[in-house]
Amino acid sequence: MAKVLTSKEENYAQWYNDLVLKSGLAENSAVRGCMVIKPYGYAIWEKMKNELDRMFKETGHENAYFPLFIPKSFFSREAEHVQGFAKECAVVTHYRLKTDEVSGGLIVDPEAKLEEELIVRPTSETIIWNTYKNWVQSYRDLPILINQWANVVRWEMRTRLFLRTAEFLWQEGHTAHATRKEAEDETMQMVRVYADFSERFLGIPVIVGTKTDSEKFAGAVDTMTIEALMQDGKALQAGTSHFLGQNFAKAFDVQFTNKAGKLDYVWATSWGMTTRMIGALVMAHSDNHGLVLPPRVAPIQVVIVPIYKGSDEFPAIAEVANRIKAQLTALGISVKFDDRDTQKPGWKFAEYELKGVPIRLALGQRDIENGNVELARRDTLEKKVLPQEGIATYIQELLEKIQENIFQKALSFRSENTHKVDTWDGLLDVLNNKGGFALAHWDGTIESEDRIRETKATIRCLPLNNKEEDGKCVVSGRPSKQRVLIAKAY
Amino acid sequence: MAKVLTSKEENYAQWYNDLVLKSGLAENSAVRGCMVIKPYGYAIWEKMKNELDRMFKETGHENAYFPLFIPKSFFSREAEHVQGFAKECAVVTHYRLKTDEVSGGLIVDPEAKLEEELIVRPTSETIIWNTYKNWVQSYRDLPILINQWANVVRWEMRTRLFLRTAEFLWQEGHTAHATRKEAEDETMQMVRVYADFSERFLGIPVIVGTKTDSEKFAGAVDTMTIEALMQDGKALQAGTSHFLGQNFAKAFDVQFTNKAGKLDYVWATSWGMTTRMIGALVMAHSDNHGLVLPPRVAPIQVVIVPIYKGSDEFPAIAEVANRIKAQLTALGISVKFDDRDTQKPGWKFAEYELKGVPIRLALGQRDIENGNVELARRDTLEKKVLPQEGIATYIQELLEKIQENIFQKALSFRSENTHKVDTWDGLLDVLNNKGGFALAHWDGTIESEDRIRETKATIRCLPLNNKEEDGKCVVSGRPSKQRVLIAKAY
Repeated sequence: MAKVLTSKEENYAQWYNDLVLKSGLAENSAVRGCMVIKPYGYAIWEKMKNELDRMFKETGHENAYFPLFIPKSFFSREAEHVQGFAKECAVVTHYRLKTDEVSGGLIVDPEAKLEEELIVRPTSETIIWNTYKNWVQSYRDLPILINQWANVVRWEMRTRLFLRTAEFLWQEGHTAHATRKEAEDETMQMVRVYADFSERFLGIPVIVGTKTDSEKFAGAVDTMTIEALMQDGKALQAGTSHFLGQNFAKAFDVQFTNKAGKLDYVWATSWGMTTRMIGALVMAHSDNHGLVLPPRVAPIQVVIVPIYKGSDEFPAIAEVANRIKAQLTALGISVKFDDRDTQKPGWKFAEYELKGVPIRLALGQRDIENGNVELARRDTLEKKVLPQEGIATYIQELLEKIQENIFQKALSFRSENTHKVDTWDGLLDVLNNKGGFALAHWDGTIESEDRIRETKATIRCLPLNNKEEDGKCVVSGRPSKQRVLIAKAY
Repeated sequence: MAKVLTSKEENYAQWYNDLVLKSGLAENSAVRGCMVIKPYGYAIWEKMKNELDRMFKETGHENAYFPLFIPKSFFSREAEHVQGFAKECAVVTHYRLKTDEVSGGLIVDPEAKLEEELIVRPTSETIIWNTYKNWVQSYRDLPILINQWANVVRWEMRTRLFLRTAEFLWQEGHTAHATRKEAEDETMQMVRVYADFSERFLGIPVIVGTKTDSEKFAGAVDTMTIEALMQDGKALQAGTSHFLGQNFAKAFDVQFTNKAGKLDYVWATSWGMTTRMIGALVMAHSDNHGLVLPPRVAPIQVVIVPIYKGSDEFPAIAEVANRIKAQLTALGISVKFDDRDTQKPGWKFAEYELKGVPIRLALGQRDIENGNVELARRDTLEKKVLPQEGIATYIQELLEKIQENIFQKALSFRSENTHKVDTWDGLLDVLNNKGGFALAHWDGTIESEDRIRETKATIRCLPLNNKEEDGKCVVSGRPSKQRVLIAKAY
């Protein structure tokens, strides 16, 4: 098969775009900035959804659904929120089209103008807190632990498949609590759920930390984030969990009678993870042959390719293939037996490498005679011949090993590309030459942060697991108590 | 507990609305015509989704996701489709808000007007067929068997929770085929999936049939429907499957090379089922005490309510309750042990009747002493005392019986309310007095159909399982070969 991907060394951005298109994950649509998520990409999203949904339910959350549209005036209620979200958005102004009497074409009916414009939700805090107002009277009505799976729209000017699109899919959790402590604990719990999901399920190691004031969610008191490192040395914000304090409760007048019998405003959190994670998954593990999918998120975990010359060889091969398939299926492993006679084995090999299927089995006439099967690992590209006897349990264990290997490889990459720097020049060297994460002292001022931002990098977070240490800010030289994570980012 | 529902005999519409609100399924939102689906309602939708999704995948379909927005011009491409869908819709005209310099309020930025307006999808045939165009070159690329789970918007003037809302959730299948026969078979297969789902899962018997030309989907050659009968004698269209012929392929120029090497247009189907089914579920089975949920769709299948005087009685009761809960959970049955001490048993009994939980267990001090448990069925309201020994397997079988009983009850109701009529007066008597389904001969003309429509009833469908018989149209007296299903409808 001809080389279908630009190599990442040659042009990382082009490699990514080629890979998303050629592996059948997604494509651009006729609507600017909106993508079509194709079946293979959506199957990955379904796996992510199922796992996250399970984790949310295990931590006591329920799903619900709130309106797609938000009245324009709702955004103005929370002063910072409106700055962050009500600007670049899709605005519904009319509710009817009609046939133009002159041209015969479809036009917007000027008589069907809405009294108040509706915004297609960029995030749902406002409409949800307007709803919670009627649900909460007493502390007995709390906590409310709700998640929503939905589409949202942010009118991005420059878009890239999965990473930045006008419409994307996500989940947004919105919880309401009687005390500050409960809401803070929830914020922390959910960022830890995201970190666990990212590392254990997607094989992507992440740094958990707090955003600086200038980088936090518009309307939040604190934003927790998980930050992942991509193979080109850039950071990607992979999920955020916000402690909203009483900001939205005040904006929407959501008060409750507490245990002491006094009126108080409700404490809030929100947290979200999006289809952007599919982009992170692609960029964290893949190579110049195509996707490398961790087994837990792979729609097809094992593919079986028959290799035969004449069609008389096929029945015996198919029999063994179907037997192995049945054994694997019984173990809960998803298997595809690709018995198409319209494509050659070599083409299929390349196709499943492109699609990142973790394990490929090949079965030929010689294998049938010897009771063997050839197994190829996508993550290491290693091949070996194994007895058919016991292959199912072997594969079951190997899938676990592959999952772990992919994570460890990403972890090593991150270690190699995380640099402690103590000077401004040292920071610039990382940002402009070496790439990756820089850990540097920062004095906590917006002035120093702005200087860092001028390099096109940002403070990604104040890592949670930081140890306190005395140091000097790489910008100002002023004293600092901890290092922060700095990187260029998606 | 005070009576919380208007009785259905008194005011059926009010009973329905009360029931949806009080049982916690959904409520109206601040956005006209858009509802909030609350956790209990959404849990029912999740059960429906999971089952339908399983059925779609078993029949070879995959999920994908297409844009929320559709360029206005796309609607004009299919002449009938535009009439049906491009009129009452949400129109996005701008992509930015700004702060008004005079008032300080948020206004639409007049400089951010879209070149072409975008319509929030009322259904996705146009954007999907515009996409399929690039996916299909040869018969080898066919069939395409795709489903989408999504939200859609139709600007309805009068809305009712679940039954008719501006925004609703649904699935829409869109398939592409090489031959007419394959597409026709798919249309039939999917209407049968809907009928099976409705009867076996929701316990709602349905009539499968074909819509008349004037009632079919805008852009379809044929529309298959399933029609259910509600307890007030009105019909509800519960799912539709459309054979679209080559209409959309021609509108979006989707051609392929067939096996004979010739260019041909692709054949299409689409099919959908919506959150409206939750409304049907409520109206088909519920009573004046509240919801009656078939076990397969019930978020909670069994609830255990402890009955105790002093708190010293509680531990022994809780021990038995938790043991029974564990036994039921092991059988895959969803159980809630309501151990709240803030509500009395009587309040809880009424609450779970309102929520339609199929089986309620009550455990008191006497039951503990005797090794018994009191079991109440929601469908029949029968109570009996049973030994704790073997209760789990008893309940497992009983849930199946309840599922069947709910279906049979609805089936009997439909039989009793289906009337063969042979005269115009006989038809009017059913439509205006008796209610229910009328089976009457119709001559197949639009004139006779319009006369029927003047009664505010419609021809719901030409039932598939009709036997041919000679008769005379109840409107015109002209000869007819089969009876059609006529009713007032939601």
